[in-house]
Amino acid sequence: MATKQTIEEGLEFMPEFDNNGLIQAIAQDAKTGQVLMAAYMNREALDLTIQTGYATYFSRARQKLWKKGEESGHVQKVEQILVDCDQDSLILKVTVDAGQCHVGYQSCFYRALKKGTDKQLEFVAEKVYDPKKTYKK
Amino acid sequence: MATKQTIEEGLEFMPEFDNNGLIQAIAQDAKTGQVLMAAYMNREALDLTIQTGYATYFSRARQKLWKKGEESGHVQKVEQILVDCDQDSLILKVTVDAGQCHVGYQSCFYRALKKGTDKQLEFVAEKVYDPKKTYKK
Repeated sequence: MATKQTIEEGLEFMPEFDNNGLIQAIAQDAKTGQVLMAAYMNREALDLTIQTGYATYFSRARQKLWKKGEESGHVQKVEQILVDCDQDSLILKVTVDAGQCHVGYQSCFYRALKKGTDKQLEFVAEKVYDPKKTYKK
Repeated sequence: MATKQTIEEGLEFMPEFDNNGLIQAIAQDAKTGQVLMAAYMNREALDLTIQTGYATYFSRARQKLWKKGEESGHVQKVEQILVDCDQDSLILKVTVDAGQCHVGYQSCFYRALKKGTDKQLEFVAEKVYDPKKTYKK
């Protein structure tokens, strides 16, 4: 039986999936430290990621496995998988090419809340590729 | 009505809370880029974070608001809030002191999956404080 002690300080990997069978997975550029995206994995996505060395997620919107880059070519080579204290979140340290977000940016986090407001965003990045050319209809 | 276009490329902040009323929130050290923790916010936690400038989360385990550092003193001063393309994940760029994880490490992500295994973790960090001294019974 897993105890708080073994989960937090042990060396057995016991990923904690939520009621929907999902665990948070954050992709972080292994070289620059930039957070590229935040998504979810189910058990199968995690197993495939470990087995293949390339990130596979579970798309909540489409309710299916999603090998990152299967359409765009912008795959994520997994260098390291980190797990947090209570083992319900993962970080994938990944090596990537340019353009990880389907909107055209390097990271999905290309907007920030403007200081002093609670509703107004501002862009904090420039597009690095043209998604229209990458994603064919 | 929010469209894919306005959500992804617009400048209105429209955080998308899930069926449980929660949104992913990742705390990242504004200086070093280290990911410190991954947690959740409900609407109230997000509003408090914006209003006070210090991170407040919603604890799923305790089902209540949780001002980071309320017990330990290890608060997170929020420098910037980033939102992702579909507005269902946030990054808080934060300024912090030493020791953000209750287990004693700077980051909650202090263990990694050992290369070539699918069950074996290894420590990738050293403790930076003694939680026994910080958290009084």
